Amino acid sequence: MNERIVIIGGGFGGLYAAKRLKKAPVEVTLIDRRNHHLFQPLLYQVATGTLSPADITTPLRTLFKNQPNTRVLLAEVLDFDVANKQVILRDGVVPYDTLIVAAGSGKNYFGNSHWMANAPGLKTVEDATEIRGRILTAFEAAERTTDPVKQGAWLTFVVIGGGPTGVEMAGALAEIAHETLRDEFRHINPSDARVILVQSGERLLPTYPPELSIKAATALERLGVEVRTGRRVVDVQERSVTLAANGLEEKLATRTILWTAGVQASPLGKALAAATGAQVDRGGRVIVEPDLSVPGYPDVFVIGDLAHFAHQTGEALPGVAQVAIQQGRYVARLIKHRRAGKSIAPFHYQDRGNMATIGRGKAVAEIRHYQLSGWLAWQLWLVIHLMYQLDLQNRVLVFVQWVWNFATRRRSALLITERDQQVTAIEPYTGLKLITSTGTFLSIRDTTSRFQ
Amino acid sequence: MNERIVIIGGGFGGLYAAKRLKKAPVEVTLIDRRNHHLFQPLLYQVATGTLSPADITTPLRTLFKNQPNTRVLLAEVLDFDVANKQVILRDGVVPYDTLIVAAGSGKNYFGNSHWMANAPGLKTVEDATEIRGRILTAFEAAERTTDPVKQGAWLTFVVIGGGPTGVEMAGALAEIAHETLRDEFRHINPSDARVILVQSGERLLPTYPPELSIKAATALERLGVEVRTGRRVVDVQERSVTLAANGLEEKLATRTILWTAGVQASPLGKALAAATGAQVDRGGRVIVEPDLSVPGYPDVFVIGDLAHFAHQTGEALPGVAQVAIQQGRYVARLIKHRRAGKSIAPFHYQDRGNMATIGRGKAVAEIRHYQLSGWLAWQLWLVIHLMYQLDLQNRVLVFVQWVWNFATRRRSALLITERDQQVTAIEPYTGLKLITSTGTFLSIRDTTSRFQ
Repeated sequence: MNERIVIIGGGFGGLYAAKRLKKAPVEVTLIDRRNHHLFQPLLYQVATGTLSPADITTPLRTLFKNQPNTRVLLAEVLDFDVANKQVILRDGVVPYDTLIVAAGSGKNYFGNSHWMANAPGLKTVEDATEIRGRILTAFEAAERTTDPVKQGAWLTFVVIGGGPTGVEMAGALAEIAHETLRDEFRHINPSDARVILVQSGERLLPTYPPELSIKAATALERLGVEVRTGRRVVDVQERSVTLAANGLEEKLATRTILWTAGVQASPLGKALAAATGAQVDRGGRVIVEPDLSVPGYPDVFVIGDLAHFAHQTGEALPGVAQVAIQQGRYVARLIKHRRAGKSIAPFHYQDRGNMATIGRGKAVAEIRHYQLSGWLAWQLWLVIHLMYQLDLQNRVLVFVQWVWNFATRRRSALLITERDQQVTAIEPYTGLKLITSTGTFLSIRDTTSRFQ
Repeated sequence: MNERIVIIGGGFGGLYAAKRLKKAPVEVTLIDRRNHHLFQPLLYQVATGTLSPADITTPLRTLFKNQPNTRVLLAEVLDFDVANKQVILRDGVVPYDTLIVAAGSGKNYFGNSHWMANAPGLKTVEDATEIRGRILTAFEAAERTTDPVKQGAWLTFVVIGGGPTGVEMAGALAEIAHETLRDEFRHINPSDARVILVQSGERLLPTYPPELSIKAATALERLGVEVRTGRRVVDVQERSVTLAANGLEEKLATRTILWTAGVQASPLGKALAAATGAQVDRGGRVIVEPDLSVPGYPDVFVIGDLAHFAHQTGEALPGVAQVAIQQGRYVARLIKHRRAGKSIAPFHYQDRGNMATIGRGKAVAEIRHYQLSGWLAWQLWLVIHLMYQLDLQNRVLVFVQWVWNFATRRRSALLITERDQQVTAIEPYTGLKLITSTGTFLSIRDTTSRFQ
């Protein structure tokens, strides 16, 4: 029987590992709860209406259609039975000879998970369409209310977290307010919207060179974003967020809070650690060996956001697509060499650089110690993000919509679609006379319309 | 003060009425519960993964951006107060001088609304993404089960209703099974799927000439669809549908039932009838005067799917986009003439024809007494459906995806996205050994993963 390789997670790490095993005489099982791979670096563009979910996702089955040694299993993994070498699903088990855990990460509210309902994060396609709906609903609600205080709260957007996602979200939100929605409302001016970007550290993009942090902040401020660094979030409510700095607290009235502040490794990290005796870091990531295996288990690997790999610089590698891709490829190569009785050098991450867009036509980038910003960085960002699309059609659709957005400043996907984001979520329409007669109200209830 | 024209509904009727009032010295308020216009004739392509929701929707605000006399109001209408000339919202009232009710229609289960949960219909973007998820989940579930009876039920798709939507859905489903998903599964052959189209009447497309009904049935059968005419649905359950014909009953085991059999006018039709004393037909449509006004209320009009207009042929006009568009334009013209003290001739529908696609490269069409079928009809269908897109970008995106689908037989949007359609909806994975040790089960519950 061929070696059975089980890969958990169809993100960048799992996908690239499986792809590199195409010609190996092994049986690969790729397990994911979702039927698609998500190109997460562009997810903020779904949340801000530039792209549709399908443009940045590809069904896993389609990706492995022509790879006969690989099967895709839509299933939820709960735990590991390393003694018997099997993965425990919600409803069955899958035996393995070699296991690659690439289960990724979710949102981290740092012990305040009750903030989640009022400050959604951005990890899945559903998160993105929900955030998109919240943003658009806020403008609709502002249009309807005549109370200037309420209107101000609806038109205040607070993005928490000054990493690449927060910077990109804030930039896109400012563009929506100042450009995309121009002339679309009759009672409000969308340009009156405030976009506030909150960062706990002293500068945006803390993993980038300080010069680029300054350039990013300047570019965002030019777009109209209020950049608040050195502010810690101490409370999140439905209608406010409270920031603290130097012992002083500031409460911002807002109806839209977006959370990009932190990631937490999948709970499968802790489950694997419990099963193998491995250590996890504070973020729940499994501390791995130089070859990405779990200590004492040379046939169990952890890669991508779920892995804590600190053998190179003493610091854990960041949870970015490039790390996951390189780790996926490395483990596939290691497996193939091991089958041939050979060993390979420890994993070594080649930092190809970092980049973030700040609205249309502007980006910051750091590529092998070169720094770039502005128009050229943005062009490079476009090319690289198109290049990494897995699918020709996605590439074409993304390109068409970027050209459109660039040329017209419009966005193609400004839909409110979530069922729970109907207009009924908005408060009473005080812009018009309210009904006072009880009789009328009674007759209304009898004819409640379900659709129009 | 300018004449206040209130339009309820941003579908074809309401939209074209508002657009034609662009230069009139009136104040238009367009009320809809959704923030977008939906190009409903292509909704089945979202349900079958060829297009994304954003490709066939356009925000109403964008459509009226450059029409300063028109405002868009996101609101839910509950009732009418015709004595005081105002529309009653869930949370306020809107006064009008002239009212155009274009609230459209929803699904009709003919008194069996409890069938809805197991046999979803296709009216909104959410319906379409839910149906898409159900179809894809059925193939996933079939892949996982090893019980041939269960597998057969998961691979049986029953489309109820032999009108254009049913015909188009069944054709697209057959293509998904036989072409799109080819080679994507390892345990099942998607081509084994059965697609059954059920029609209560004696022929498909009953409003088309009989020759085209035969051609449509032949083309569907060539695609592998089982066409069952003259069958009434007598029961719908979660795992079966029961058909009756000539006193005999047949129970089909299936996990996917799609309902395209009937439409029911918006409840606002009955509300308006109660307020004005107008009559409604069995489908809940308001019976209108030759000028589309409500009897006795020359300033209240009903158009589109909600109107029963039978002055032309004695039969009510069908609920299709062309009727709604022409009625919207007519009422706008009438309003403009009335302001000038002139009257216009009664509404007269110009039947521009009917068409339906039957999979890739085939369609049937009837255009001013000419009948077309096959490749030419399909080309015409493409051109007309592109032409009627309201938005250049939608036109480009739809075109690109059609070309892609035609060239590769692939579909760009095969996502399972609805939150309640996770893999947990699928039954236990009997393809793999089930866990028997209670101890293991207990340890599983403690580490339940929320994401991978």
